[in-house]
Amino acid sequence: MSTFPLNAWYACAYDVEVKNELLARTVCNQKLVLFRRLDGAVAVLEDACWHRLLPLSNGRLNGDAVTCGYHGLVYNADGRCTHMPSQETINPSACVRAYPVAEKHRFVWVWPGDVALADEALIPDMHWNDDPAWAGDGKMIRVHCDYRLVLDNLMDLTHETFVHGGSIGQAAVAEAPFVATHGERTATVTRWMENIDAPPFWARQVRTGTGYEGPVDRWQIIRFEAPATINIDVGVAPAGSGAQPKGDQPGNRSQGVNGYVLNTITPETDKTCLYFWAFARNYALHDQRLTHELREGVASIFREDELILEAQQQAINEHPGYSFYNLNIDAGSMWMRRLIDKMIAAEEQGGAKPSKRVIPLRSVA
Amino acid sequence: MSTFPLNAWYACAYDVEVKNELLARTVCNQKLVLFRRLDGAVAVLEDACWHRLLPLSNGRLNGDAVTCGYHGLVYNADGRCTHMPSQETINPSACVRAYPVAEKHRFVWVWPGDVALADEALIPDMHWNDDPAWAGDGKMIRVHCDYRLVLDNLMDLTHETFVHGGSIGQAAVAEAPFVATHGERTATVTRWMENIDAPPFWARQVRTGTGYEGPVDRWQIIRFEAPATINIDVGVAPAGSGAQPKGDQPGNRSQGVNGYVLNTITPETDKTCLYFWAFARNYALHDQRLTHELREGVASIFREDELILEAQQQAINEHPGYSFYNLNIDAGSMWMRRLIDKMIAAEEQGGAKPSKRVIPLRSVA
Amino acid sequence: MSTFPLNAWYACAYDVEVKNELLARTVCNQKLVLFRRLDGAVAVLEDACWHRLLPLSNGRLNGDAVTCGYHGLVYNADGRCTHMPSQETINPSACVRAYPVAEKHRFVWVWPGDVALADEALIPDMHWNDDPAWAGDGKMIRVHCDYRLVLDNLMDLTHETFVHGGSIGQAAVAEAPFVATHGERTATVTRWMENIDAPPFWARQVRTGTGYEGPVDRWQIIRFEAPATINIDVGVAPAGSGAQPKGDQPGNRSQGVNGYVLNTITPETDKTCLYFWAFARNYALHDQRLTHELREGVASIFREDELILEAQQQAINEHPGYSFYNLNIDAGSMWMRRLIDKMIAAEEQGGAKPSKRVIPLRSVA
Repeated sequence: MSTFPLNAWYACAYDVEVKNELLARTVCNQKLVLFRRLDGAVAVLEDACWHRLLPLSNGRLNGDAVTCGYHGLVYNADGRCTHMPSQETINPSACVRAYPVAEKHRFVWVWPGDVALADEALIPDMHWNDDPAWAGDGKMIRVHCDYRLVLDNLMDLTHETFVHGGSIGQAAVAEAPFVATHGERTATVTRWMENIDAPPFWARQVRTGTGYEGPVDRWQIIRFEAPATINIDVGVAPAGSGAQPKGDQPGNRSQGVNGYVLNTITPETDKTCLYFWAFARNYALHDQRLTHELREGVASIFREDELILEAQQQAINEHPGYSFYNLNIDAGSMWMRRLIDKMIAAEEQGGAKPSKRVIPLRSVA
Repeated sequence: MSTFPLNAWYACAYDVEVKNELLARTVCNQKLVLFRRLDGAVAVLEDACWHRLLPLSNGRLNGDAVTCGYHGLVYNADGRCTHMPSQETINPSACVRAYPVAEKHRFVWVWPGDVALADEALIPDMHWNDDPAWAGDGKMIRVHCDYRLVLDNLMDLTHETFVHGGSIGQAAVAEAPFVATHGERTATVTRWMENIDAPPFWARQVRTGTGYEGPVDRWQIIRFEAPATINIDVGVAPAGSGAQPKGDQPGNRSQGVNGYVLNTITPETDKTCLYFWAFARNYALHDQRLTHELREGVASIFREDELILEAQQQAINEHPGYSFYNLNIDAGSMWMRRLIDKMIAAEEQGGAKPSKRVIPLRSVA
Repeated sequence: MSTFPLNAWYACAYDVEVKNELLARTVCNQKLVLFRRLDGAVAVLEDACWHRLLPLSNGRLNGDAVTCGYHGLVYNADGRCTHMPSQETINPSACVRAYPVAEKHRFVWVWPGDVALADEALIPDMHWNDDPAWAGDGKMIRVHCDYRLVLDNLMDLTHETFVHGGSIGQAAVAEAPFVATHGERTATVTRWMENIDAPPFWARQVRTGTGYEGPVDRWQIIRFEAPATINIDVGVAPAGSGAQPKGDQPGNRSQGVNGYVLNTITPETDKTCLYFWAFARNYALHDQRLTHELREGVASIFREDELILEAQQQAINEHPGYSFYNLNIDAGSMWMRRLIDKMIAAEEQGGAKPSKRVIPLRSVA
């Protein structure tokens, strides 16, 4: 069984990374070459020349035309060969695969599966990343682990206490009760910590955002959307100020500060992933120094996770067939994995495995 | 067939290496975490958290309690989980394997096999390493070869002539006759070289120990104890002074100098090993400079072996299935390998392969 | 199916590389040790001691005798063991394989296959490399690709336009028509480019050789000799000076300059090769500066190829089973591969696979 579905949108680049030049990326074990066309749209092609497999990303881009760096075959942005050296007739089968691509919420999304199913309405909502009511920034890091280990990590924030004790972690996170729910494609874990001392990170944020100092109510609402996106609604408000919803009564967060940790994790190979993240906030929107500081602060927190995740992947490699026990804290992660498995199973039962069609069988002309 | 028995004591650390902090080691393909408990005894646990397999050596030690660095599960020195985050009831199966361990003759010994068979009387005698009548010191090196190649190397000292020509080697070693004998768990190779010029190393030792200069009788008595220990009784005495036993008559070594090269080689993986050695002497016991000089001198001799052994391992990898011829000089090594093979075969016929029980099959709770 | 025939002469060293000292090389997956005997001839032996497989190249050479660096077995230049430690009788099977070897046209050639078939008349003609009417020099580089990818590269010089645009490449090469022919063991691709501007490299050569500046007729006559040698007759002459043969009329190259790019590519392993090349010219024979400049100039052109070839090999590894399309420009390479495949098939049908005999099965004495 595959470790990821192919019929899904995966982030393959931050918007600013893609210029009118060739950029190599791997998504779901498929080597891709990306470039921004002269009309501003992004093109994504299979990164292997039809003729001798040389990566097209080793070649040259002229306008929207990619010239292979070995024998000079030229491809247009649809992947069709438009020129061959020393011959006038071009073999009609001469093309490389072109992938459905969309740009939304500051990410470039690619669909590695069945082209007919690529519906842009399925792109996860990460609007906080370019909504003027929010400010923030993010990064992409390459982590040497199965993308699901990053998702596991995000679905249970108990680990903050042990991995991030110096910044956002505190005993309260591991002790507070939480509620896990799920839908057809989503799973949610909600944790409220009432009347606690804010940990160093949040103490600084609430002071910056509202001037408040004192005990807080803290929340973490983790929302997974299959197969690879987790947006976490996080924040603190003065203790007792009513931020937490009660029954049908919505909460009032107006005295607090709110952030969103936006995460979408793309399987690069079975054991590596591209982890795109951003941190957006609804306070001090024009404070550029704060944006810079938060980006670097979150980056250093995620580096702590990276070490753990790569050590865990190595341990998994050394224990093939190990069946994992789940604790109470793993409720969210269990649902997350069930939803992913359901997508993969449906795809594999569907018969038409898109990955099989990546490299069509070609005979010698 | 395995390359090593599991029902045996293997050195996993020098005594001084183990403090009240977490130390990762691998023995017989099993990842271990070692620490010295507050009562001074050593604990050895499986180095993989029951929950998500993160190495416990990535975590923290508080007193005798190991806290996993990911989600904070706590284990006591017996490997039993005593705390889980966000839940009060602890799953009774939550534990990691604890290994039988003993400290003797300056080494920490671990038993990777069937716990019921771990009898401390089976720990090899290496008492010269902490006997007040002897002085010396040693090191541990990690060699990238099957541990049996190190044992082969030690069972035939002919190689000294070719590998260690600048120090202890001399043509006499390759030319002198030797006698090989064996018992149930031991194999011995005895070589006497009578009335020869001492090689540089031994000329220096006998001069330091006794003031003597001149021709010597030299001995090498190599004693293997299955599966992985070789103690070598070495020395020189003035030629004709009666050091060599004759018939029932014991030898008189009182005019000579005597050393023991103590070696125990622990399989780390199938193709790497932890080589623990020491050199103990019965002369100039309080000469610290000599202890230092001998330790570094032997270390540089062993580095010459290391290069040969790693080149040999690589050649073996490149010739799978190669059947080796044995020369006369290989008599001791042949017996050594037969005794090891016998232990492995007995263990594998016994049915209960202990290595199978390292990671019990666990279902999702 | 193997990727190379074994019954063939392969270059394993430049003449000057082989001195009276041990040199390790790998040819067709076989580890060899080379040395020049006292009588000046070259000996090539299997690089693994009969006893414990230690590479003999780790040992010592005394005159024509190789002493193993572990236990001191001595071998003569025929690979026969002439001395064993601690025993007088030498096992008659104690030997390592000795390979047929010949020195010709500045290369040392080894025959890894059936000794009975090693006919020196089969060594490819590369006489330009030591003919007094020609001057030049060359190098050996190790390329991390199947040797046939280097041959593909040389059989179609269209790639000059795209890979070597700054030196020898020009659009004319990709546009000019060519003729491909073949024989029993050879394949030839001939391309004439008439009345063109010389590219930078050739403009300099014709000015140096003849003082001529102006449009030229340029030729490339690529001749492959199975399994691994390609000599390329290259040059330019003043446009219209009659260099190109017409019908039965031979060409007159007397007003031009002529070079030979000599290439022989030895499979080292299935995915690495030893690429020996030289550039010989028939003008300015005593200009040492020019020899030096050409050698380094060609070396930097070949480094451009090296990057492409290693990227192509990696892409092939990632697309197992990919069937390649051929373009018109691949006519020469297609014939080249058919001739190699024919040699391999004949050898494998012959039954006696020489590679099987490299390491005879040996039982314990």
